[in-house]
Amino acid sequence: MPKPLQDTVGAFIPGPRVELPGAASGPLVGLSFAVKDLYDVAGQPTTYGNPDWAATHPPAVATAPSVQALLQAGAALCGKTKTVELAYGLTGENVWHGTPTNPNAPDRFPGGSSCGSAAATAAGLVDFAMGSDTGGSVRIPASYCGVFGIRPTWGAISLAGACPLGPSFDTPGWFAGRAGVLQAVGEVLLPQDSPAGPLGPLLRVEEAWANADPLTAAALAPALARLDARFGAALRLGLAPEGLDALYEHFRCAQAEEAWAALGAWVVSAQPKFGPGVAERFAAARTMPPEKAAAGRAFRRGFQARLAALLAGGAVLVYPTSPAPAPRLTAPQAEQNAVRERTMGVTAIAGLAGLCEVSLPAARVDGAPVGLSLVAAAGRDRALLALAAEAASVLDLPV
Amino acid sequence: MPKPLQDTVGAFIPGPRVELPGAASGPLVGLSFAVKDLYDVAGQPTTYGNPDWAATHPPAVATAPSVQALLQAGAALCGKTKTVELAYGLTGENVWHGTPTNPNAPDRFPGGSSCGSAAATAAGLVDFAMGSDTGGSVRIPASYCGVFGIRPTWGAISLAGACPLGPSFDTPGWFAGRAGVLQAVGEVLLPQDSPAGPLGPLLRVEEAWANADPLTAAALAPALARLDARFGAALRLGLAPEGLDALYEHFRCAQAEEAWAALGAWVVSAQPKFGPGVAERFAAARTMPPEKAAAGRAFRRGFQARLAALLAGGAVLVYPTSPAPAPRLTAPQAEQNAVRERTMGVTAIAGLAGLCEVSLPAARVDGAPVGLSLVAAAGRDRALLALAAEAASVLDLPV
Repeated sequence: MPKPLQDTVGAFIPGPRVELPGAASGPLVGLSFAVKDLYDVAGQPTTYGNPDWAATHPPAVATAPSVQALLQAGAALCGKTKTVELAYGLTGENVWHGTPTNPNAPDRFPGGSSCGSAAATAAGLVDFAMGSDTGGSVRIPASYCGVFGIRPTWGAISLAGACPLGPSFDTPGWFAGRAGVLQAVGEVLLPQDSPAGPLGPLLRVEEAWANADPLTAAALAPALARLDARFGAALRLGLAPEGLDALYEHFRCAQAEEAWAALGAWVVSAQPKFGPGVAERFAAARTMPPEKAAAGRAFRRGFQARLAALLAGGAVLVYPTSPAPAPRLTAPQAEQNAVRERTMGVTAIAGLAGLCEVSLPAARVDGAPVGLSLVAAAGRDRALLALAAEAASVLDLPV
Repeated sequence: MPKPLQDTVGAFIPGPRVELPGAASGPLVGLSFAVKDLYDVAGQPTTYGNPDWAATHPPAVATAPSVQALLQAGAALCGKTKTVELAYGLTGENVWHGTPTNPNAPDRFPGGSSCGSAAATAAGLVDFAMGSDTGGSVRIPASYCGVFGIRPTWGAISLAGACPLGPSFDTPGWFAGRAGVLQAVGEVLLPQDSPAGPLGPLLRVEEAWANADPLTAAALAPALARLDARFGAALRLGLAPEGLDALYEHFRCAQAEEAWAALGAWVVSAQPKFGPGVAERFAAARTMPPEKAAAGRAFRRGFQARLAALLAGGAVLVYPTSPAPAPRLTAPQAEQNAVRERTMGVTAIAGLAGLCEVSLPAARVDGAPVGLSLVAAAGRDRALLALAAEAASVLDLPV
């Protein structure tokens, strides 16, 4: 049964909280959760973070199957959480619903787009929370808020009943304060892994470590050393001779075309009001040259093949989830844009290649959280969650 | 039937050549071969490159099983070839038998210790030749003489009837002028591969590329680009944060102790005369502190595990076989020593980890050959030979 809950960090969408009891028995009994407000819950509006979206869409007729699975497993839903408008942003800002407070760094952004789910989890309002991840929307708020987060293998879990942003990149995802809860949710939602041997070794992705702020890399170094001692993490991998900027650019172009294909008709017809940044991104998506999107897709095919072959034997990539802690709330828009581009060069690794990634709340920089990511081959989500739980134990994180 | 053969490069040991016909039928009928004079041939002395060794050992009572297998497969033996004394050196120098001429760079060393086998193959005197490899003794002369060479997985092929140098490192190996012949010999000698999927992708080992002379790296770059276009070779791997110097040092210490264990009693009792360098290496082996050898073995265990896990999925390492073409015959001893140390930091990768490695005659620098190596997981020798044959075709090398 959910405990009495006060939304101390502004994580939930305004209005009465949507509450549903979990089944009386099941592996998640006793756990409470929230869902990002792009998942449908029967009879409720789905705002997708934007008032005009809510005003132009009827309440949901059915609950998203993933949410339904969690309820049936015994978890209790205690609210729908804020999201960046149409999930198209990484800071977590929402000018209509209010930006959630980052519980572990109140002077900084919570990260997004799954900002409310990350904040609710970090504040201990729920045991876990569902988000979604297209270009980093679970991983980045997990890193910024100091909680565990997973972006599962693309296609592993149904996104039926969830709003799209870039369907060939979109995945669900979830946050938890403890590694064991992150894993337990996976056991409910994930298919069985493709048969394969144990995961390992860990490969340090050089570009991502070099891309990190020196203070962030230094803050994560002790955790890396402990993982090395336990699992072996001495091998270094250079996976993008093109540079992370090129990964980001290919990701951006291919994804923007999909965003416009998925949402452009509504943008044109509804003429919605957008907060800062979101309008600009849809304007760029609208005018994305088809040949740039095609080049992005072609690059993705080669990059996927490159990583799939490398990771088939069980190797796991390890690198800072974000190159730095969250930007401060006072950061100017230009700085926010620069941070987003630099961050998405890293998140594009799993994003382009369709890999599964778990972010561990492994360190703090200037008091603000920053995550360490473990990234495995597509289809190895359960093994990755088990590895993450073991890593959490090695790192003395909540298990 | 072997063609009339004139030893234009001084590849064979002095005296009458040891000739044996091959079986009338078999996969190697029509091919001629030579064997390094550390393999036993029944009724013949095995000199091991040193007159005192020959004088203190009776003629062999049996032919080494690997040589016997080649004869039974139809190949015709047409001689025993020169080796560095007790196989303990990389230049190919032998002051007692005379250093073979490098057919493709006559002003440079042929490389060793399997110098005569490499020279005989490069000069076209034989279709293939058996060598042996402890720390590079097939791979380096293959690189220097411009022929194909393989060091198979440690333990894959029996070394019965072959003189030891460092038993936990020693492997046989062979040279061929054509990739198809290199592969055909493997089909006779090698066990079936461990079941596994296809090989790939190719990983550029950063330390080995950085260790190569700039001219050598540049000369090999076009071949790498062609392999990248065909097989994917864009990923870069840093496998030795300890540095190649540390790999060499661990290799040297562990191997020297074994060399003294295998050969020390004979050195003490026979008081052999050695040429330059060999005596010094045995003196160092004799005084190797046990704790340094133990540290080398301990390092090897971790390094093996690190590489085995990484390569289990089929990934193949790619790097210059040697950091430069062969040193010139006029190089002073100090320069030869420096070249050896720098070279063995690279050969120690497969040497320590027990991997299989094929060197392709991929480029020339200042007119002198230099090889490009493909290195696969232990037990993947047949797949590696098939990949090497495909690579040879891509690179327009003799197939």
